[in-house]
Amino acid sequence: MPRGSETKQNIREICRIAARVFYAKSYDGASMQDIAEAVGLTKAGLYHHVGSKDRLLYEIQNYGMDILDETVLAPIKDVADPREKLRQTIVGHINLIVRARDQEITVILHENRSLSDPLRKKLNARKRGYIDYLADLIRRVQEQSGKPPQISPRLAAFTLLGMINWLYQWYSPEGPVKQDELGQYYTDFFFRGLLGTI
Amino acid sequence: MPRGSETKQNIREICRIAARVFYAKSYDGASMQDIAEAVGLTKAGLYHHVGSKDRLLYEIQNYGMDILDETVLAPIKDVADPREKLRQTIVGHINLIVRARDQEITVILHENRSLSDPLRKKLNARKRGYIDYLADLIRRVQEQSGKPPQISPRLAAFTLLGMINWLYQWYSPEGPVKQDELGQYYTDFFFRGLLGTI
Repeated sequence: MPRGSETKQNIREICRIAARVFYAKSYDGASMQDIAEAVGLTKAGLYHHVGSKDRLLYEIQNYGMDILDETVLAPIKDVADPREKLRQTIVGHINLIVRARDQEITVILHENRSLSDPLRKKLNARKRGYIDYLADLIRRVQEQSGKPPQISPRLAAFTLLGMINWLYQWYSPEGPVKQDELGQYYTDFFFRGLLGTI
Repeated sequence: MPRGSETKQNIREICRIAARVFYAKSYDGASMQDIAEAVGLTKAGLYHHVGSKDRLLYEIQNYGMDILDETVLAPIKDVADPREKLRQTIVGHINLIVRARDQEITVILHENRSLSDPLRKKLNARKRGYIDYLADLIRRVQEQSGKPPQISPRLAAFTLLGMINWLYQWYSPEGPVKQDELGQYYTDFFFRGLLGTI
């Protein structure tokens, strides 16, 4: 394995473990010593790998966005029909939130204000890229429907992000709604909200 | 002013100020000394009023739920038509989130995992009361429509809470969407999602 990719794997492993520690104790409540112990490194070793606590939080959130790209967006990049592509994006994003409840994604959602300004800006640019992707797909779905749009694509993207990202606050796959039902109900609800008439 | 109500006012004033400190520094990042200074009390004086840091977080979150009851739900308790009542609830909840972006409500949304178990249980029971209220209204709106329900009232309540509570993450009244437009777009979107056909 080339050196660069080996380093990336090391960082990812640290991110996965550190995310759980931040989730359990919060970003401010967890010390670098706590994280070093969980990872199995000395504190100096941990600093050598990640630079600073702030940088570690950034790496975790960046890794969370990598997971979204790699497991949700890349596999459907060649889907041509906008509605089918949006449907698969919604289901993929839901599965990611449900699967990663106590890991990287939740740290993105929950600790999003803790980053220092330059790192937060970099991450926000990445998040905006995803919002642009959603808004563009939504706009194409509206155009395809042939009806006048009832809501702006961007506002609709934010209603969608709210519906999905809030799942980490309450949803349990062990509860009355199974995960595949959840995806179905949420996509149907969203498409009715976007295109429906009462 | 009777004694009990005077104490309640004191606690509320402390809650308002402490909420801003917790919002700025996070619950774990803010010390009781930080809060005492912001409130203008000695640390001993602050402990006398609120008992503990955990209790203070509970009081803030409880106060946030009081505000929901007093400013959103109480004024519309006699509205008979379920759809109109739900519409007013949605608009009121949105206004609360937008108005209180940096205060009590945001602390409820953001620090909801920081409470110790007994206090968290008390607060969760109050939150469940609101979810029950929404689900019951939604069920009545579905019945009134005369159509078979397309989503369970409880799942619809959670989509609604997600849409609205996520606003604190991105919405700015200074942005392109004005607050009254936001209420209109969100209620229309929700009712189409609940009752619409494509």
